[in-house]
Amino acid sequence: MLLKKNVPFKYVFGKIRYEIVVIALYATLIAFAYNSYHFTRITIPLAVPAVLGTVISLLLGFRSNQAYDRWWEARHIWGAIVNDSRSLARQIMSFTYDSYDGDEVDAFKERVIRRQIAWCYALGRHLREEEVDKGLEKYLNRKELEYVRGIDNIPSALMDLMGRDIKLALESGWINRFQQVELDRTLSRLCDSMGKCERIKNTVFPVTYSLYIHLALMLFIALLPFSVIEYFGFVEVPLVVAISACFLLIEKMAIHLQDPFENKPTDTPVTTIAKSIEKNLMQLYGNELQYNARHAVD
Amino acid sequence: MLLKKNVPFKYVFGKIRYEIVVIALYATLIAFAYNSYHFTRITIPLAVPAVLGTVISLLLGFRSNQAYDRWWEARHIWGAIVNDSRSLARQIMSFTYDSYDGDEVDAFKERVIRRQIAWCYALGRHLREEEVDKGLEKYLNRKELEYVRGIDNIPSALMDLMGRDIKLALESGWINRFQQVELDRTLSRLCDSMGKCERIKNTVFPVTYSLYIHLALMLFIALLPFSVIEYFGFVEVPLVVAISACFLLIEKMAIHLQDPFENKPTDTPVTTIAKSIEKNLMQLYGNELQYNARHAVD
Amino acid sequence: MLLKKNVPFKYVFGKIRYEIVVIALYATLIAFAYNSYHFTRITIPLAVPAVLGTVISLLLGFRSNQAYDRWWEARHIWGAIVNDSRSLARQIMSFTYDSYDGDEVDAFKERVIRRQIAWCYALGRHLREEEVDKGLEKYLNRKELEYVRGIDNIPSALMDLMGRDIKLALESGWINRFQQVELDRTLSRLCDSMGKCERIKNTVFPVTYSLYIHLALMLFIALLPFSVIEYFGFVEVPLVVAISACFLLIEKMAIHLQDPFENKPTDTPVTTIAKSIEKNLMQLYGNELQYNARHAVD
Amino acid sequence: MLLKKNVPFKYVFGKIRYEIVVIALYATLIAFAYNSYHFTRITIPLAVPAVLGTVISLLLGFRSNQAYDRWWEARHIWGAIVNDSRSLARQIMSFTYDSYDGDEVDAFKERVIRRQIAWCYALGRHLREEEVDKGLEKYLNRKELEYVRGIDNIPSALMDLMGRDIKLALESGWINRFQQVELDRTLSRLCDSMGKCERIKNTVFPVTYSLYIHLALMLFIALLPFSVIEYFGFVEVPLVVAISACFLLIEKMAIHLQDPFENKPTDTPVTTIAKSIEKNLMQLYGNELQYNARHAVD
Amino acid sequence: MLLKKNVPFKYVFGKIRYEIVVIALYATLIAFAYNSYHFTRITIPLAVPAVLGTVISLLLGFRSNQAYDRWWEARHIWGAIVNDSRSLARQIMSFTYDSYDGDEVDAFKERVIRRQIAWCYALGRHLREEEVDKGLEKYLNRKELEYVRGIDNIPSALMDLMGRDIKLALESGWINRFQQVELDRTLSRLCDSMGKCERIKNTVFPVTYSLYIHLALMLFIALLPFSVIEYFGFVEVPLVVAISACFLLIEKMAIHLQDPFENKPTDTPVTTIAKSIEKNLMQLYGNELQYNARHAVD
Repeated sequence: MLLKKNVPFKYVFGKIRYEIVVIALYATLIAFAYNSYHFTRITIPLAVPAVLGTVISLLLGFRSNQAYDRWWEARHIWGAIVNDSRSLARQIMSFTYDSYDGDEVDAFKERVIRRQIAWCYALGRHLREEEVDKGLEKYLNRKELEYVRGIDNIPSALMDLMGRDIKLALESGWINRFQQVELDRTLSRLCDSMGKCERIKNTVFPVTYSLYIHLALMLFIALLPFSVIEYFGFVEVPLVVAISACFLLIEKMAIHLQDPFENKPTDTPVTTIAKSIEKNLMQLYGNELQYNARHAVD
Repeated sequence: MLLKKNVPFKYVFGKIRYEIVVIALYATLIAFAYNSYHFTRITIPLAVPAVLGTVISLLLGFRSNQAYDRWWEARHIWGAIVNDSRSLARQIMSFTYDSYDGDEVDAFKERVIRRQIAWCYALGRHLREEEVDKGLEKYLNRKELEYVRGIDNIPSALMDLMGRDIKLALESGWINRFQQVELDRTLSRLCDSMGKCERIKNTVFPVTYSLYIHLALMLFIALLPFSVIEYFGFVEVPLVVAISACFLLIEKMAIHLQDPFENKPTDTPVTTIAKSIEKNLMQLYGNELQYNARHAVD
Repeated sequence: MLLKKNVPFKYVFGKIRYEIVVIALYATLIAFAYNSYHFTRITIPLAVPAVLGTVISLLLGFRSNQAYDRWWEARHIWGAIVNDSRSLARQIMSFTYDSYDGDEVDAFKERVIRRQIAWCYALGRHLREEEVDKGLEKYLNRKELEYVRGIDNIPSALMDLMGRDIKLALESGWINRFQQVELDRTLSRLCDSMGKCERIKNTVFPVTYSLYIHLALMLFIALLPFSVIEYFGFVEVPLVVAISACFLLIEKMAIHLQDPFENKPTDTPVTTIAKSIEKNLMQLYGNELQYNARHAVD
Repeated sequence: MLLKKNVPFKYVFGKIRYEIVVIALYATLIAFAYNSYHFTRITIPLAVPAVLGTVISLLLGFRSNQAYDRWWEARHIWGAIVNDSRSLARQIMSFTYDSYDGDEVDAFKERVIRRQIAWCYALGRHLREEEVDKGLEKYLNRKELEYVRGIDNIPSALMDLMGRDIKLALESGWINRFQQVELDRTLSRLCDSMGKCERIKNTVFPVTYSLYIHLALMLFIALLPFSVIEYFGFVEVPLVVAISACFLLIEKMAIHLQDPFENKPTDTPVTTIAKSIEKNLMQLYGNELQYNARHAVD
Repeated sequence: MLLKKNVPFKYVFGKIRYEIVVIALYATLIAFAYNSYHFTRITIPLAVPAVLGTVISLLLGFRSNQAYDRWWEARHIWGAIVNDSRSLARQIMSFTYDSYDGDEVDAFKERVIRRQIAWCYALGRHLREEEVDKGLEKYLNRKELEYVRGIDNIPSALMDLMGRDIKLALESGWINRFQQVELDRTLSRLCDSMGKCERIKNTVFPVTYSLYIHLALMLFIALLPFSVIEYFGFVEVPLVVAISACFLLIEKMAIHLQDPFENKPTDTPVTTIAKSIEKNLMQLYGNELQYNARHAVD
């Protein structure tokens, strides 16, 4: 997931293209005014942008921290989804009595496994605001598909079906009441993960903060040419552009990290994770079938 | 919730209007004294405010962090309320025996669902110090309304009713003692969330800290004009105002974030969240009814 | 709790009174030496205290963070005490069978509620090293009072009584073994909170750290006058005092926050919290009585 | 583990060898141009790299923090693996009934213990992308070995076997259903730890961040010679090299710490930990055998 | 514990004695060269060490944070040991049936209590690498002593004995299977705490980091005299020494805090905590005896 090479460098530099051009023009203008028309009174001591630089550095550090935390928390949550999906599968396998109605139990087991896989894909697409029910026909039966398509929040509807199926298992005597509670806890954890993803998705980083940091940064960049012009002349232009680019890129990076479910290259790789869950669960279920078959032969 | 555009920019700038005017006048006065009366001995080397600038930057960073943590914790708590409300609903649905007194059980289920919705609204209004019982008649029956209106802390009273209803369910044999304990844990988690909200609401950020940071900032702003006057003359005024505004806005933002239940634009969107819980729970309950009806037909 | 206005400003400024006077005298002496006796070789470039200023700022930031964390953790713990006290009360209410020996059960319920209130007050007083058993006669019966007065750690003794009473309830058949374990967990959480308070109380902030930060700060203040004297003459005195006060106040504030159970104005408001628990629990118990009475009439 | 002396100093310095050489040549070239051809217009005021230095310091601090957190979390996870392995062993010992089919129970106990040891080694090798099944024949029987060799993810396959064995124990009446759930929780915790390791392994530190920090650092180093050349002449070369090395080493260190499962000297010592688990578990099992033998004699 | 006065000031200053002497000689040498032989070309602008000062400040801040976290986590763990020891004692008291073989049950209770106390002392001594079995004869009987002396890791062996004793209690019918699981959880928590202590003890702070920070600090100190010599002459010596001492002391303090189990004055006070656990548990057990005696009389 998030392979070392898969963030196109150009992609992000492209984002500050316009800023860079504007800053270059601005710096050139000032150099021109200073050198050709001798507006030499306009220089500023370097200590002025330096003071601003300190506070901006700290605010960008704060911003980077919070953005990273959101991104890392998103990754944590999907890590928990992987673990709890596996736990659910293992519990479904090892809790059920191999009772006389074995075929129904097997159908139940497969249904839960497939539905869990569907839920992972659906949650990923739901968070990225893509068409959620696409491709689910591979994992759900006709009745389930019909049911979930009638409902807004498909991942949540799938969890409701899960709850009902487990109630059915209890009433059919395939699991006992104590195990139902244990399975219910696993469902609760999965629902909690879903809720946490939605919290991150729906809560924007305080917008005024972003704005203030951006304003302070603009002020800093605006003052920069005046404070270096006297030393460098036209060499000032690339210098100002380079320093501005440093700060702007850090800001942009924080903006990208802070929304980890927007289908961008730095995103949480929800599809990759869902695929890996599918592979895991299908393997576990396949091995179980094999194992049971072998035991039946014995 | 907290949509990207819903924090009026003017709203916050309005908050530092007076400070800005005072600072502008103050800076102008100094520029006037310097230029017209040649009080040139009053200049200060820039390094003096720079030292203060470093410590203030760090303190504002510290302050921003703590304020952000309070705000983010508030959002976490309400995320947990969403999850636990859904868990409570799912447990009520899947734990109850569909026993012979089915109508009473259905009434019990509906009562719990509606009361949970009422609790979310009531908690939000309680935290914002609004009239708590407004609009609750939509979710509570007459007897419940009467009961809670006699009590100070309405959300807490609703939870007491919840506890008693679950005890009733146990005594009526609709759930077993093991499930009661599990439901009691869900109630405990909801009560914990309520307690945590009250903790954030009732614990102010250490007031002396705020004061010291503000004093240090004032000292910094007071020294600023003296240290830039010699380079800029009257251009100093907008420069001082701009730099001061940067620092003051960061401070104001921290002050706003740190109290997340005050019904301000940057608040935790408790009403929006409560509405979303209502939608979720009613949908879950509606589907349950539909599902049961269909099964009864089968 | 910790109302916005209840930290007397003078109270804290009073704490740095002596330092301020000494610094003022020291700065005056240097200004005098410089101006009247022309000891002009003693000036220091401002960059020297500036380097120290950076490291001190970072250390004060570190210190403030740790102090704030201790204070906020203390507040968290007492928030958990509020929640667990309420949980204990709710469980005692809803777990007990309304068996034939109803009066004894009611006495047991009341005893637990009152003892829990007593525990909260006692813990607060214990942490503040006040006379612990004062006022407890309002909540405990004669036998309990006698018992706890013979023991060093009264809050801990109250918890032992709680454990025994719950064992009694189990042996009398008022609760079952499963519920006993659940109640035991609530007691464990309350004991954990008590232990955490004692950990914060008994573990001082590493004293050498405090000392080093203080020494570095002293060095910084000692160098300050030498580096500003050449620009300001006697104006240097208020400037040095103001900057020193900024740093000293931040240090003092951290010192105050880091010990949250010392009965100081910035303390955790343990008494207020205990009072609020008392109100909550008595109301819950009162409502229960009323509710039961009404039901008995029905 | 990670002994004080086992990180070869040369090893890490070797990593910045090429950078150091390039920087030295670059600095020499500039000194040469300045001194011999009198390109004296190229000097830069020191404040320019100083501003960059502040923002880079903060970003390296941020980077170090995140890298350290990943490394420390990896260590935490393996600490939890140690604890849960021991818990699993203790539970297997103390939960099983010493029933009439004692030999089968003993074989079951030994199988679980040995498989747990195998799992620890396999997980370590899996994370380091080494040949996973090497050496497992010491701990697994022929059938188990065959089974896991057919599967991609060997640690995960071992956990599946564990789940099945515990189901067998339940069905054979060696443990009861309540204990099965408790053992299942221990397995869940172990699987969670495995999932967490994979999360850290598979989630790279946001690559654009690394890139930006590196670019800013390069810019800083590129400007450094120009700003010190006028003071030092050729002495500038070692000075620039030394300062650059400081910054580059911190960056390199963060890069090393952030991937704690790559079989590098600063890694999480997974093999050492697995060995210590083996020693612990074998000792526990050996003592158990001894103890039982002694009791049988009694 | 860790009383305010018990860190001998000299003790820590003693640690930087040699560094201070070397720095003083080095600074004197430079002052001498500058003043007497007029090597005046060797001055460095103050901004050079200032840049280094910023990055070193940040790294020392980072270092202090991590060291403090380790120290505070160690304190947390021992706080948890206090709480879980008490919980174990309370559970042993309140879970056991007062069955007909009362004397054996009493012996069992006392054995568990005494063994728990022994475990706390043994763990403390084990972590500090002192002779572990010294003084344990006060708490353990002959058979237990013999057993643990044959084993490497004594605290771990004591926990094994605990597990077996609880199994015995179950088999003798003194506790039920449900309570066994609850007691097993308490043991698990205690074992987890032991494992966490060992993790902190065995994982050194990344040694290359320490080294780099130290090298950067050395470079900073080496440059310092050159940048202040032109202003102060021989006064430079105490100034350089004082500033260097500030930085070195902070580094030393971090080094001390980061290893909290090395029997140094700033250590976690494991013996004091173990003593306090002993007092607590003996008091609890004594009261229990008294209480039971009184009831027997009644």
